[in-house]
Amino acid sequence: MKISARNQLKGTIVEVTKGQTTAHIRIDIGGGVIVTSSITNESVDSLGLKPGQAAYAVIKASDVMVAVD
Amino acid sequence: MKISARNQLKGTIVEVTKGQTTAHIRIDIGGGVIVTSSITNESVDSLGLKPGQAAYAVIKASDVMVAVD
Amino acid sequence: MKISARNQLKGTIVEVTKGQTTAHIRIDIGGGVIVTSSITNESVDSLGLKPGQAAYAVIKASDVMVAVD
Amino acid sequence: MKISARNQLKGTIVEVTKGQTTAHIRIDIGGGVIVTSSITNESVDSLGLKPGQAAYAVIKASDVMVAVD
Amino acid sequence: MKISARNQLKGTIVEVTKGQTTAHIRIDIGGGVIVTSSITNESVDSLGLKPGQAAYAVIKASDVMVAVD
Amino acid sequence: MKISARNQLKGTIVEVTKGQTTAHIRIDIGGGVIVTSSITNESVDSLGLKPGQAAYAVIKASDVMVAVD
Repeated sequence: MKISARNQLKGTIVEVTKGQTTAHIRIDIGGGVIVTSSITNESVDSLGLKPGQAAYAVIKASDVMVAVD
Repeated sequence: MKISARNQLKGTIVEVTKGQTTAHIRIDIGGGVIVTSSITNESVDSLGLKPGQAAYAVIKASDVMVAVD
Repeated sequence: MKISARNQLKGTIVEVTKGQTTAHIRIDIGGGVIVTSSITNESVDSLGLKPGQAAYAVIKASDVMVAVD
Repeated sequence: MKISARNQLKGTIVEVTKGQTTAHIRIDIGGGVIVTSSITNESVDSLGLKPGQAAYAVIKASDVMVAVD
Repeated sequence: MKISARNQLKGTIVEVTKGQTTAHIRIDIGGGVIVTSSITNESVDSLGLKPGQAAYAVIKASDVMVAVD
Repeated sequence: MKISARNQLKGTIVEVTKGQTTAHIRIDIGGGVIVTSSITNESVDSLGLKPGQAAYAVIKASDVMVAVD
């Protein structure tokens, strides 16, 4: 499946933390940068996500803001 | 100002494309990765965004999905 | 690629309208229901989206609200 | 109240699962399609959402991505 | 229709600017605060939005970030 | 840091409720209006958010819908 989301950052899952309904996934995308994702527990189970696994952080362009110092 | 958004990816603006109301900003965050952002033209003017400028791509964790091959 | 987004509604593209930076795609998911998507022109070009094509409307669960009459 | 969100998919609530702060609602929109929504527990209580109830899955066009096989 | 979105800020539309596909609506919610919304041109036409009209800015809680100085 | 998000509503935090992974923050923005935000527990800890603190509710324009009665 190819998806329209402009941002598909390749990395490795380093942490999976499940709450009661919502899980947090941390993906190391290299260069010392960790991306944090908040998804449903069901998605974690459905994709079998676990630390050490190769994965992409996928983000729609309209969900990216820009900041300057 | 410090913001709750978990993902603040440091980089350099490489392209600013304005449409009639919506602009696309491309930020090089290193390691060959370009992040695309879709924001209002007003934001571009208000922050004075232009290529070459240091900037952050800011993304709320709940807007990050996870994909696997 | 398999993605964490809980909602992947299968259908057929019935309309592609490009603006200067943002495009609107309408997908017929059956039962008389049309889903409207707003994505970048780049995505349209990159995926080669056009009317008649099979496609999925993909939506993260945290972007779905619930309404009652 | 009429809302600007382009996508208002009519269906029936089939499942309500509350976590500590976040709830998941599953809505059957017909044709064998279930839409999953992640909202606050407060919203569930405020609207009195429960299985069997008629409801709409409401989604802003800018939150809909497009995928192709 | 009652919607799950936690934030429904009452005000008056003060500006409607249409682009080719995307429109910007500015709503005065009182106390000197203007909220900016980016929606499809179709929504503007469908709801007949125009300056002077009473309206609500509706925002899902998961789309609200928190910042501190 | 200055951010592109068009909506930065100044107020005072009146409630912080943590779940297992997701927290809800309520910010009084004046005029009797409370804005509810859903963010990660990590963000709450990282910014040290607590009731009584001055804060902004920050919302990207593309996440704001418009409703009329």
